[in-house]
Amino acid sequence: MNEMAIEHKCNSIYCYPVDKKTLNLRLRVSKDDEIDKIFVVYGGKYTFGKKQKEQEMSLTNITKLYNFYSISLKVNDPRICYVFKIIIGKKTYFYSEDGLSEKYDFLLNFYNAFSYAYINEIDIHKNIEWMNKAVFYQIFVDRYKNGSINKDKPYINLKEDEKPTPKSFAGGDLKGIISSLPYIKSLGVNAIYLTPIFKSISNHKYDIESYYEIDPMFGDEYDLKELIDTAHLLGIRVVLDAVFNHISERHAIFQDVIRNQKKSKFYKWFIFYNEDKFEYECFSSCKYMPKLNTNIEEVQNYLIDVGKYYVEKFNIDGWRLDVSDEVSHYFWKRFNKEIKKLNSDVILIGENRHDASDYLRGDEFDSIMNYAFLKAMLDYFKNPDFTSLDLANKLNELLMRNTDIVNKMMLNLLDSHDTLRFYTEVNTSKEKYKCAMAILFVYLGAPCIYYGDEIYLEGGYDPDSRRVMKWGKIEDDSMRNLIRNLSAFREKFYNGSIKIYSINDLFIIERINDAYKYKLSVNHGERVKIDDKNIILSSLYEENYLNKDGFVISVERII
Amino acid sequence: MNEMAIEHKCNSIYCYPVDKKTLNLRLRVSKDDEIDKIFVVYGGKYTFGKKQKEQEMSLTNITKLYNFYSISLKVNDPRICYVFKIIIGKKTYFYSEDGLSEKYDFLLNFYNAFSYAYINEIDIHKNIEWMNKAVFYQIFVDRYKNGSINKDKPYINLKEDEKPTPKSFAGGDLKGIISSLPYIKSLGVNAIYLTPIFKSISNHKYDIESYYEIDPMFGDEYDLKELIDTAHLLGIRVVLDAVFNHISERHAIFQDVIRNQKKSKFYKWFIFYNEDKFEYECFSSCKYMPKLNTNIEEVQNYLIDVGKYYVEKFNIDGWRLDVSDEVSHYFWKRFNKEIKKLNSDVILIGENRHDASDYLRGDEFDSIMNYAFLKAMLDYFKNPDFTSLDLANKLNELLMRNTDIVNKMMLNLLDSHDTLRFYTEVNTSKEKYKCAMAILFVYLGAPCIYYGDEIYLEGGYDPDSRRVMKWGKIEDDSMRNLIRNLSAFREKFYNGSIKIYSINDLFIIERINDAYKYKLSVNHGERVKIDDKNIILSSLYEENYLNKDGFVISVERII
Repeated sequence: MNEMAIEHKCNSIYCYPVDKKTLNLRLRVSKDDEIDKIFVVYGGKYTFGKKQKEQEMSLTNITKLYNFYSISLKVNDPRICYVFKIIIGKKTYFYSEDGLSEKYDFLLNFYNAFSYAYINEIDIHKNIEWMNKAVFYQIFVDRYKNGSINKDKPYINLKEDEKPTPKSFAGGDLKGIISSLPYIKSLGVNAIYLTPIFKSISNHKYDIESYYEIDPMFGDEYDLKELIDTAHLLGIRVVLDAVFNHISERHAIFQDVIRNQKKSKFYKWFIFYNEDKFEYECFSSCKYMPKLNTNIEEVQNYLIDVGKYYVEKFNIDGWRLDVSDEVSHYFWKRFNKEIKKLNSDVILIGENRHDASDYLRGDEFDSIMNYAFLKAMLDYFKNPDFTSLDLANKLNELLMRNTDIVNKMMLNLLDSHDTLRFYTEVNTSKEKYKCAMAILFVYLGAPCIYYGDEIYLEGGYDPDSRRVMKWGKIEDDSMRNLIRNLSAFREKFYNGSIKIYSINDLFIIERINDAYKYKLSVNHGERVKIDDKNIILSSLYEENYLNKDGFVISVERII
Repeated sequence: MNEMAIEHKCNSIYCYPVDKKTLNLRLRVSKDDEIDKIFVVYGGKYTFGKKQKEQEMSLTNITKLYNFYSISLKVNDPRICYVFKIIIGKKTYFYSEDGLSEKYDFLLNFYNAFSYAYINEIDIHKNIEWMNKAVFYQIFVDRYKNGSINKDKPYINLKEDEKPTPKSFAGGDLKGIISSLPYIKSLGVNAIYLTPIFKSISNHKYDIESYYEIDPMFGDEYDLKELIDTAHLLGIRVVLDAVFNHISERHAIFQDVIRNQKKSKFYKWFIFYNEDKFEYECFSSCKYMPKLNTNIEEVQNYLIDVGKYYVEKFNIDGWRLDVSDEVSHYFWKRFNKEIKKLNSDVILIGENRHDASDYLRGDEFDSIMNYAFLKAMLDYFKNPDFTSLDLANKLNELLMRNTDIVNKMMLNLLDSHDTLRFYTEVNTSKEKYKCAMAILFVYLGAPCIYYGDEIYLEGGYDPDSRRVMKWGKIEDDSMRNLIRNLSAFREKFYNGSIKIYSINDLFIIERINDAYKYKLSVNHGERVKIDDKNIILSSLYEENYLNKDGFVISVERII
C-alpha cells in the first residue's frame, strides 16, 4: 500500500457529525492500491476495547491521485472510537492514529484509535435546507433595471448598448428589481443575491458611506422592504452583500479620523502602519477604501449590529461576505453566533477564492462563492488538453475539500461581477456554454446565474462584466429555456447523492434519490453513440449520437 | 515524486501566523523523494501575479513516512499568497492548491495559489511564555501530605505503606501542599497541577458537589489563597482541575432534578435518553456522575462563571480540563474567550488522549496532557522491537500534529493518576526510567512529573497509581538529583529549536539556542563509544562508552 497517501483526521472534513446519531467518515487512500474492501471498526468510547462492530465503506469519490471511501455511520452511543480495516487480497491492515499496521490491539484503543469523543449537537454544522434547493440569480443593481419613473436621473450616464466604464451609472434600482421578480421567478430562480445597496458614491457600492442607509440611487428602506416581502411571497430568498473588510473614506467614522487624527475615538478602528504620514491599510491598494480593524471589539460590535439590523428589520435570508478572507476568523465566529441566534436559516456565504475549508467548519460561513468550480469549468471548456476525466477528478477533489453539509450549501458559479462572462470566456460558443450551465445545475450545491447569463450577455473583465441588462425582445431564448428546465429538474434530485466520473470523453454526473437516477453526460470529444434511454433534456443530440460539446440528461427509475 | 504524499493547507498546522509579520509554513513530502531543495515563492495577495520573492525552506522533521520542510516567513504585507517550488535534480515542480505541476502561471494565482489572505492579530494563538519554561508537578491531593494538625481525621483510613483502594483516604490537604512548596521548589519545579479540590465525597473529587466550595477534607478558601500566594512568591504557578463534563449526583442542581423531575428548572442541564425511566447520560457508565449538557447556554454560563471565579478571586494560572474531549467545542470556545479576557496568560490544558489538533487551533485549548508522548515512551522502553529510529520518527510525527506554538506549551508526561507509574511500567528499571525522564525534559513542551516519581514511587493501575507520598528519608536520591539537574538545564534551552533523530541505536535530541547546542543521546542498544565532549550529565556513561539504557547530555558552544 502507499501508506503515505492515507489520510484521516477526527473533527475535520474526514469525520464530522450530521446529527447526534450519525457520524460521516471518509478515508483517503492511494488510487493505485488495489483495495478490495474497507471497513470502519467502531464502538463506544468506553467499550471499544472489548466490543467492536464493523461496517463496510463505499468508494464514493475518485480524484487524480486518491480514492475516497465514505460512510454515514449510525451510532447509539454518541461517544465513538474507531479504526479502519483495509482488505487487499489475503492481507488485512488496520489504520489508526498511529498509522498502518497488520495487527491492532483494541485494548490500547484509548491511546491511538480515532475518537470523536462525543457528538454535541451544538457543534453540528446545521444544514440550511432552502439553500440545498436554491437556484440563485446575482444582480449588479445599477445595471439591472430602472424602475423609478420619478427618480432624479441626471447621474445616469450609461445606455443599454454602451460599454460601461468605472464611472458609469445605468440607473438600476430596487424598484426595477421588484418589477422584475416575476421574470426572475419564471427562470426557476428562487434566490437572489444583490451586490451592495448601501449608501455609496460608486456604481458598485463596495465603498460604503453608511450601512444604515439604502443608497438613494437604488431607493430607500420602503423599497427594500417591498422587494423582500414581494420576493418572499413569490418564494424567492434575498441575500445582501456585506462589505465588512473596509469602508469608504467618506464614511463619517473615517471622516472623524481625518479631522481629529489620533484624538478621534475611531482612530483604532483603522490600521495605521505609518502614523506620521497618515498611512493606513486599505482594500487592495485603494486608499479610498480604508480597512476596518476587526481585531477590536468596538468594530466587531458595530458590524455585528449592521448584520443583525437587516436580518431583524428586513428579514433577509443571508449575507454574502465581501473580501471575507481578509477579515478575522475571530470576528466571523462572533458574527455567525449572533446572526444564527436571530435566525438559524440565514445563510452566510464567504467570498473566498482559495480553499476555504478553515472558514467552513460550521462556526464561520456555511458556504463560499465557489471560484474553484468556476476555474475547473474554464479549464475544461477552454483548454483542449483538460479532459473529461480531468474534470471528474477535479470536481471530486473539490467535493473532498469540504464536508457534504457544506458541499450542499456551496454557491457554485460560472461568472460574477468580478470575472469575465463565461459566455465570453468560451468565445461565445453556445454549445459549450449550455454544457457548462447543465453541469452547474446538476453539480452539488446551489447554482448561481449572473444576471444576463440567461440572454447570452457578453462581457470582458470589470467593468465590462457589468454591462446593462437587455430588456427588449431577445432573439435567442434557448438559454432561458435551458435554465427553466434545469431549475425544474433540480427540484427532483437536489436532495440525492452525487457520483462524478468519466467514460472515454464523456463527463458524467449522476444524481440519485430514493427512486430515480438522473444522469448528465457531456461530450467533450468526438461524436459518440449514447445508449441512454429516457432522455429528458439534450443539446446537440440526434439519433442516438451526441456531438462534441453537446449534453444529454436522462432519467432512470431505480426502485 | 510521490505526489500523493505531499500535504499543505492554509490556516492549519501547515500554515499559521506567529505575529503580524511572520507566517510559519510547513510542507510535507514523501521521505523517499530525493529532493534537493524546496523554496516558498511568495508575495502580496494583490501583487503576487507580477512580483514574487522566494526563500529556501529547511528539512526540520523526519517521520516514518514523511519529510517536513519548514520556514518562518517574514513578510511586510500581511496579505500573503504563495506556492512551493521543489527542485529534484534538473527538474522543477510547483505545488499549489491545484497540486503538482511543472509550470505555474502566476497570473492565475488568485484561483489556486495558497493564500493566507490577511494576518489578523486576534487570530494568532498567543504563546504563554511561562508555560515554555514550566516544569510541572502533578499532585493527587489526598495522597500528598496532611498538613492540618487540627483537622477532623476520622475519615482517614489509609496509611503511608498501604495499598490504596477506591475508597481510601490518606488525609492529604492544601496545608500539606503549602508546607511542601519549598521541597517542590527544590526539585526545580515551577508549576503545580492539583487534581480537583472542590467539594466531593470521593478521594479523587472528580464528582463535584459544589464548584464554589473547597472540599473540607482539603481545607478552605483561605488555604487555597495561602497556597497560591505562597506558590507565587516562590515562583511556582498553580493549575487547578476543572471537571465540566459531569458533576456529582449529590450536587444541588441534580438533586433538584431528582426531586422535581421534568418540572425542575435544571432538567435541561442534563441529557435524558429515556425520560420515563429517568435514564440520563453520564461519565463513562458512572451514574453518580451525570453529564452536563454544555449544548445549552445556561450550563455554559454557569461553568464559565466557575472558571472565571478562580481566576479572578484566587489568581490561578491555569485550568486542566477534565474529559475535555466530550464537552462541546462551542463551549470551549466561549470558555477560552471569557477566561483569556481576564488574563491572557492563563493556560488551558485539555485532557484529550487522542490527536487533539482540532481543539488546539488557538480558540479552545493551549495545550493537552500529551498521552501520545507517554505512549511513545512506553513503546520505546517496553517493546524491544521499537528502535531509537522509531522513537525519533514518532516524536517528530507528534510535533507535526500541532503548531510549534502549541508544541512549546504541551504538557508532556510519563504518568499520571490515570496510568500506571512509568517506573512500574519499565519493571523498576532505574536506568530506563532515568533515560525517559531525560527525554521528557529535553523534548519540546513542559515536562510534568507525577508526585512521587522523584522518589521511585511504584504503582499499578488506578487506584494503585495513587499511593501515599513517602516523606521519610529516601534511600536513593538519584531521581531527585536528576530532576534538579534537568530542570536547571531546561532553563538554558527551553527557548531554542529542537532536532530529533537517531544514529544507529542512539536516540538523539538537540536543543539549539543562540549560543549553545545541548544534545541528549540515549543508548537503546549495545554499549557504544561516545565522542561527545563537554558532557554535563550522564547515566551509565564511563570512559567514553555509553551502556544500554544510559544517556548523556553534552553541550557545545556554536557561536
